[in-house]
Amino acid sequence: MEEKNIRLVLAYDGSRYFGWQRQKQEPTIQGTLEAAIHRMTGRHSALIASGRTDTGVHALHQVCHFKTFSKTPPEALKKGLNALTPADILVQDVRYAPEDFHARYSAVSKTYEYRILNRPDPDVFVRDYAWHVPQDLDFTAMSACLDLLLGKHDFTSFRSSGSTNLNPVREMLRSELLRSDEHHFRFMFEADGFLRHMVRNIVGTVIEVGRRRFSFQDFTEILRARDRRRAGTMAPPHGLYLTMVAYDRAPL
Amino acid sequence: MEEKNIRLVLAYDGSRYFGWQRQKQEPTIQGTLEAAIHRMTGRHSALIASGRTDTGVHALHQVCHFKTFSKTPPEALKKGLNALTPADILVQDVRYAPEDFHARYSAVSKTYEYRILNRPDPDVFVRDYAWHVPQDLDFTAMSACLDLLLGKHDFTSFRSSGSTNLNPVREMLRSELLRSDEHHFRFMFEADGFLRHMVRNIVGTVIEVGRRRFSFQDFTEILRARDRRRAGTMAPPHGLYLTMVAYDRAPL
Repeated sequence: MEEKNIRLVLAYDGSRYFGWQRQKQEPTIQGTLEAAIHRMTGRHSALIASGRTDTGVHALHQVCHFKTFSKTPPEALKKGLNALTPADILVQDVRYAPEDFHARYSAVSKTYEYRILNRPDPDVFVRDYAWHVPQDLDFTAMSACLDLLLGKHDFTSFRSSGSTNLNPVREMLRSELLRSDEHHFRFMFEADGFLRHMVRNIVGTVIEVGRRRFSFQDFTEILRARDRRRAGTMAPPHGLYLTMVAYDRAPL
Repeated sequence: MEEKNIRLVLAYDGSRYFGWQRQKQEPTIQGTLEAAIHRMTGRHSALIASGRTDTGVHALHQVCHFKTFSKTPPEALKKGLNALTPADILVQDVRYAPEDFHARYSAVSKTYEYRILNRPDPDVFVRDYAWHVPQDLDFTAMSACLDLLLGKHDFTSFRSSGSTNLNPVREMLRSELLRSDEHHFRFMFEADGFLRHMVRNIVGTVIEVGRRRFSFQDFTEILRARDRRRAGTMAPPHGLYLTMVAYDRAPL
């Protein structure tokens, strides 16, 4: 029997879940999918993602992999997993991957989007899917902050306050603000990797610049300070989407 | 003390509610708002809508009214009601209306939208907000059906199977298919009034034409037959939105 490496692409609405990582009591994306894989293959397999998402965070394109001796072909796995999981998790693609493919370690870049609803009134249909920022915002100043983040930086100021010892230097490949219409816009960040809470801390601080509570100069100093206590409040999880994970070569 | 007539415009996500109409045990839009109005004004007031929406049906623009002796100004009522109701109900506008304004009887037309997701895979983010129809559809034939509905017709074939004795003739003022992009489109219907389940029965039957299970000729005969048993399956509630209610004159 030959062990296969299976690569999955998922979309999920994170609203009902306690994030990616398996927990004993609470529903998680990993726990839900591992239970379905167990039912399909008859054995427990650890499902490894490109990265963990937090409670309430969504994914349009999350990549993960697991190893199995099961002979069920990828198309049947896709159908079965979709039948066994709730409608807020969608398995979009299942295929065989090279033996050495690793959803996390093989990734060369990840892209996150952060969606903002910018108008006085909230919207009942996006209450779990965008951050409602009612204030008038300074888009020129916010765009300047995003430009500043491009390239290699020590992102210590925007990392989770609890985390330590990991190399805090990341290369930001894309950092921009895209307006969908008068009241909707999104931040888009692509980097070779992200520190924990990095996107939400950046967005929270950039929005403070938009609200004119911080200046662009303040933002520049916050980035340079490499001190988590200087940044603005972290943006809430429900505006955040993992939208792409790139690998140096396509899986087989 | 003078009794005031208050007109409200609401948006709501119907997913969590058992429709508009007050019920003893289950959460409803009317029940939730009447409880909030009671808290704001100290008295029970009956809240009357332009029409009831069913379980799971949404509203972008529902109009309703209630009478009160409370002196709380409209802007304060709006703020208070939004503070007292969950985030899936939004009071968009509150104002004084003429004494004889009646949300239901004064309406001259109503507009409904029905949203379709048309691609093989479902979408985790619209599972409660559009009907997922995976099949390839014949848009030319569907558009012909929508054109046929324009003008005055006896809509008995598309009314709820339980309903009787109401005049089944309605004038359809607008009946069209709008494509948002490759995978999303919506039906839009404006009429001087709608019979119970009329939009969902029309949509269910038009989609059968799109799937080539009924022909345009079949659809013509179904409309002419004035027989509920001839139409296709009713479309599910979660694709339906009340999007406008028009009155012959603006409220004060």
